[in-house]
Amino acid sequence: MAEIKTWNITKTPTSEYVARRKRLYDKLAAAKADAVIVYSDKEMRYLSGSMCMQLERPMALVFTVDGRSAMLGPRLEKEHMEDHVQMVDKFYIYDEYPGLIGCIDTLAEIIKDLGLSHGTVIASHPTYPPICGGRYPDLVNFLPDLKLVIDPYFVYDLKIIKSEFDIHCIRECSRWGSMALNELTSITHPGVVEPEITGIAAGKTTAAMLKCLGMEFDAKTLNNGIARASAGYRGQFAERGAMPHCVTTTEPFPDHGPLVSGAGANILEYNSELERTHFLGEPTKEMVKYFNHAVECQELIFNTIRPGITCADVDKVTRSYYEENGLMNCWRHHTGHSVGMDNVGHEYPYLDAGLTDVVIEPGMVFSVEPGFYVEGLGGFRFSDTIAVTETGIEILTYYPRDIDHLLVY
Amino acid sequence: MAEIKTWNITKTPTSEYVARRKRLYDKLAAAKADAVIVYSDKEMRYLSGSMCMQLERPMALVFTVDGRSAMLGPRLEKEHMEDHVQMVDKFYIYDEYPGLIGCIDTLAEIIKDLGLSHGTVIASHPTYPPICGGRYPDLVNFLPDLKLVIDPYFVYDLKIIKSEFDIHCIRECSRWGSMALNELTSITHPGVVEPEITGIAAGKTTAAMLKCLGMEFDAKTLNNGIARASAGYRGQFAERGAMPHCVTTTEPFPDHGPLVSGAGANILEYNSELERTHFLGEPTKEMVKYFNHAVECQELIFNTIRPGITCADVDKVTRSYYEENGLMNCWRHHTGHSVGMDNVGHEYPYLDAGLTDVVIEPGMVFSVEPGFYVEGLGGFRFSDTIAVTETGIEILTYYPRDIDHLLVY
Repeated sequence: MAEIKTWNITKTPTSEYVARRKRLYDKLAAAKADAVIVYSDKEMRYLSGSMCMQLERPMALVFTVDGRSAMLGPRLEKEHMEDHVQMVDKFYIYDEYPGLIGCIDTLAEIIKDLGLSHGTVIASHPTYPPICGGRYPDLVNFLPDLKLVIDPYFVYDLKIIKSEFDIHCIRECSRWGSMALNELTSITHPGVVEPEITGIAAGKTTAAMLKCLGMEFDAKTLNNGIARASAGYRGQFAERGAMPHCVTTTEPFPDHGPLVSGAGANILEYNSELERTHFLGEPTKEMVKYFNHAVECQELIFNTIRPGITCADVDKVTRSYYEENGLMNCWRHHTGHSVGMDNVGHEYPYLDAGLTDVVIEPGMVFSVEPGFYVEGLGGFRFSDTIAVTETGIEILTYYPRDIDHLLVY
Repeated sequence: MAEIKTWNITKTPTSEYVARRKRLYDKLAAAKADAVIVYSDKEMRYLSGSMCMQLERPMALVFTVDGRSAMLGPRLEKEHMEDHVQMVDKFYIYDEYPGLIGCIDTLAEIIKDLGLSHGTVIASHPTYPPICGGRYPDLVNFLPDLKLVIDPYFVYDLKIIKSEFDIHCIRECSRWGSMALNELTSITHPGVVEPEITGIAAGKTTAAMLKCLGMEFDAKTLNNGIARASAGYRGQFAERGAMPHCVTTTEPFPDHGPLVSGAGANILEYNSELERTHFLGEPTKEMVKYFNHAVECQELIFNTIRPGITCADVDKVTRSYYEENGLMNCWRHHTGHSVGMDNVGHEYPYLDAGLTDVVIEPGMVFSVEPGFYVEGLGGFRFSDTIAVTETGIEILTYYPRDIDHLLVY
C-alpha cells in the first residue's frame, strides 16, 4: 500500500510525547537530579496529554531520570485520568482535599515508592501552588531527607523550542484565526456593541472549525463552553486604542477612527496571534501615517529576525526605528513575545531589549507586533506569529495589511 | 425630592472600595504590619477596581496601615491605570519588562518612598509571581533591611465574607445564568455538537444581558471577547457524565441518558454557579432513582447550612446521606465551595469534611452540589449558589428541578 499523508490534525501523536519526555530526561540527567514534580496544568498537558480541572485539589506528575512516572490526583479525577493521560506508570488517588486524610502525604508516598526519599527532586514550588485558596503543607514536612530544588522554569523552558508538529498546529490555529477575524469584520459597523459581535464571530467560526476538523479531532481543550476560535477588539476603537491593553466596553462603535483587532484559535495545545489595524470610515492623513509606520516597522523586524542574534538585538532595531522617526512618544511595549500553549497568549522569551543573553534559535515562535499609540487619535498595530527557521522566519499568520482591505463601514 | 431606589447594577460604588480598604487596614493593624504588597489581579480589582492585563509585566498595589497607597505598572499601562484605578495616591511607572532598566527596583523605590525600608511588609510571594515565564529578582535584594512576611492569603481571605452589594451582584449573575441555561436547553437535541450550541447560547444571552443592563454598565470584566453569560455541558452526557470533571467533545449528543449542565454570568467582580441534571429522552427508572437522590440530598444540605456550624459539619451530613443509602460508590467530591470573584469558579473555604475549624458566618456564599456518579449510566448533580444569612440561607440561583421541566428531546 502506498503511503497516504494528510495535513489534517486530529490529535497529538504519541511520538510527540515520547520526544518531549526524552528532552525532559536528558535535562534531568544534565541537572544531576533524580526526578521532577510537575504541578502546572499546562506542563502536565505538554508531557502527558492530561486535561484535568485541578482547582483546589492537588494534582501532580512525577518523572524520574530513568523513565519511571506516577501521577497524583483526587478520587474525582480517577476515571478521567485513567481514560486519557498518556504513558504514566501508576496513578495515586487520594479521597478529597482537604478531605479526611491528606493529599500532599500521598505525593510523599509516590516519592517514597520511587525510592527517592533521600533523592534530589526538582519542583516549581515547595508544595502544590494554591489556585483556589487552598492551603497545603510543604512536601519536605513528610520527607525530611529529600533534597527539593525549587526551579519554576525547569519544565517551562522545554517548551521554548517547538517541534515541526507544534508549528504545524500553530499554522492551523492561524487559519482559523483569520476566519474568525473575517467573520468579525463582516459584522462590524458604526453603532455595534463589541461583546455582541465577538460572541457571534466566535460561535460561527468555532462551529465551522469543528465541522472541518471532523469527528476525530481531539477537542479536549475546548472546555467550559468557551468558543475556541475567536476575534475581538478589546475596546481598542478610536481614541481608546491609544491604550493597547484597553478593555471591552458596551459603548457603540463610532463612525470614524482606527480599530485594532485580535484573533486566534486553539488547536490541541497551541494558540496563534493575529492583530490588524482597521478603519471605521475613511482614515485621515495622520492616521495613514501611523498605519504605514506600523506596517513598515513590522516589515523591518520580519527582515531582522534570524537564528544567532539575540532577542535584545531584535528589540533594539524596533526602538531605533521609533527613535529615527521621532516616535518614541508613541512607543509602549517590546516587539513581541513567544507564542505557544499558554492560554493567556504570552510566553517567555520576549523580543525585548533586556534579553541580551537569549539567542534566537530555529523552532522558536514569536509574535511580531511593534505598536504606535497616539493620544487623542488611537492605536496602530499589526501582530503576526512567526516561526524561526534555519535561515530566517516563516510567517504563520496571514491577513491583508493594506488599507483597502481593512476599511470597515 | 423623594428617594428613588434602583436595583440596576452598573458599577461598584466607591463606598464598597472604602469598606474593603477599611477591613484591609484593620487587618494590617491587627497583624502589626506597616504595609501589604498586592500582586494578584483579582485582589487588585477587589481593592481598587484595577482591570489591567498584567501578563509578564509586574504590577502591584501597596497599601500602608495608615491609609497611603501606591501602584506599580509598566509604561504600557500608565494611561489605563490613571483612567480607572480608584483611590490610589501615586503611580510608579517603569519602562518595560525586562526592558533596559529594572522593575522590581521600582517596587523597592515605592517601599523606600513610603518610609518602610526597615518596615514589616506582608506579600503573597517574595517577588512578582511569574505568569508568562518571567524571571524576577527577590524584592529583598533591593531592600536588605525589609522584614518581608510571606502570607498568600492575607488579602484573599478578606473576600470570604461578602457585603450586601457583593451578594446582590451574585443575584444578578444568577438571573443571567438562568437565561443562558434556558437558551442552551432550547437548542439542545440528540445529534447536536456541544461547542456549537454553547457558543450560540453564550452569544445570545450576553447580548441580551448587556442591552438590559444598559450603557452605564461597567463591562470591563468582559475582556477578550469572551461572552460572559454562558452555559454548557462540559461533555457530561450519558455515560460520560459519570466523570464530573469531564471535557467538552465534538461527539454528537445521543438520544438517551442524563445530561449535566452548568451556567453562570459575570457581573462586575462576581460569578454564580447553577447546574442541573437533564434527560435526553425519557429517563429509565434507575436514572430517576439517582436524579431523586441528587434533589433530596441537596434539599437536606439547604436545611443544614446555618451560621455557627462548621464547613465540616455540613459535608459530614452529605457523606452520611451517601452512607445511609449505600451510595458511597457514587461519591466523588465535597458538598460545595465558596463562590465569588475567582474566574475559575471555586474559592476557599469549601464545604468539606476536613475543614473542621472553619465556622460558617453570615455573608459567606457557597455552591451546594452533592453529586451522584454511576459508571455506565452517568452523572446526577444539581448545583445552586447560596448566601448564608443570620438565620439560615438565601438561595440565589433558580431553575426548575423537576423532571418534566428538564427533559430535552
